[in-house]
Amino acid sequence: MDISDLTPELLPYLGQAAYFELGMFENLAHAIRISPDLQAKEGLSVVAGRALAKHQGLVAEIRRRGGEPADVMAPFAPALDDFRAKTEGADWHELLLTCYLAGGLLDDFFIRLSDGLPGDVGPRIAHLLGQGAGTDVLVTHLKAAIDGNPGLGSHLALWGRRLVGDTMLVARSAIPAAAVPLDASATATAPATTRAPAASAQGEARIEPVFTELVAAHTRRMDGLGLTA
Amino acid sequence: MDISDLTPELLPYLGQAAYFELGMFENLAHAIRISPDLQAKEGLSVVAGRALAKHQGLVAEIRRRGGEPADVMAPFAPALDDFRAKTEGADWHELLLTCYLAGGLLDDFFIRLSDGLPGDVGPRIAHLLGQGAGTDVLVTHLKAAIDGNPGLGSHLALWGRRLVGDTMLVARSAIPAAAVPLDASATATAPATTRAPAASAQGEARIEPVFTELVAAHTRRMDGLGLTA
Repeated sequence: MDISDLTPELLPYLGQAAYFELGMFENLAHAIRISPDLQAKEGLSVVAGRALAKHQGLVAEIRRRGGEPADVMAPFAPALDDFRAKTEGADWHELLLTCYLAGGLLDDFFIRLSDGLPGDVGPRIAHLLGQGAGTDVLVTHLKAAIDGNPGLGSHLALWGRRLVGDTMLVARSAIPAAAVPLDASATATAPATTRAPAASAQGEARIEPVFTELVAAHTRRMDGLGLTA
Repeated sequence: MDISDLTPELLPYLGQAAYFELGMFENLAHAIRISPDLQAKEGLSVVAGRALAKHQGLVAEIRRRGGEPADVMAPFAPALDDFRAKTEGADWHELLLTCYLAGGLLDDFFIRLSDGLPGDVGPRIAHLLGQGAGTDVLVTHLKAAIDGNPGLGSHLALWGRRLVGDTMLVARSAIPAAAVPLDASATATAPATTRAPAASAQGEARIEPVFTELVAAHTRRMDGLGLTA
């Protein structure tokens, strides 16, 4: 399916993805800080390094186009800061689950959108974001904790279900408002002239299968942890 | 000057240096978290990435020798955690100064000690730790803040003077107790048979010039910021 007309302009795309990866890095750094032991700290430092490498790769693409990274990321900071505040969780396990599920879903999403980017930047970004994120470490810690504690499992299942809603809102906000004017914040920033109802309905029909794929992958991640999505 | 007899055994050396760099990374990640703006966040993420790369390079050396990084680092965690708690500072500027001064001093120190490591690991580590740490960013932010606020300058000068003492204690604790039994914690862990007074006095005479060099470099860093050491 060609979703190129749903892909945002290149610089905003890079800015949102770069700031998202910086936030993931900050989440992982916080997870390192509150790790219960040194081995966990050490394992998470590898995952944090991967998120940072993604951020820096995206920042390099911004600079290559003459953009100032802070300026290009700035429009996305309020919504993504808010997303992080909502999804940081109350403890180490919730935070690890957020890194795993939200990171997985939005990496998938930005890779999917990269199909529609101009020139050779799309494949380069798909490669960058598709590199192993080292999340085996997250899965290992979460599984160990869940296996030993069924109560934690049902608690984290709830957390995972809640996360998917907030995470999908971030994904929706990346789609140009003209294509999918479902999200209030996205609609508010779209020029009035581009909000043609016909285009919106078409856009919605095209984007829906992508979202369905994202949710299916999310469900597989939950299943893999033994959690009911 | 040959200080090879002052260099600790390889694995403990790697463990202490690796855990120190992990702590620097955690400090920088915290500095990112409390950054006043996005541009500062972005600049610091590069510095954090360098500290993480140093940590990971040292961890790779530990693994290459069949060591388990968490185990090799563990003996140094209490003292270095304590060091970090004492030197984290009360705000962003204090934390940046700690990263710059303690990071600079101890990188210099571990590079100096690497001379005495066996085989080709010494030059490899000197190269790893000697790579630009990206600390220009720290200097830029600190200078901008100090230039606009003389009160902050004298406050940070005091903080810098305080830091050097705590940082030098970390350096002393790396030297085998047999060579320099000045630091109580180092002495406590040395086998009684190796604590020969003659060796200690010799060791002290050899290590003193190294410490003098470290303090001189610290003073140059302070001067460069316009602070009186």
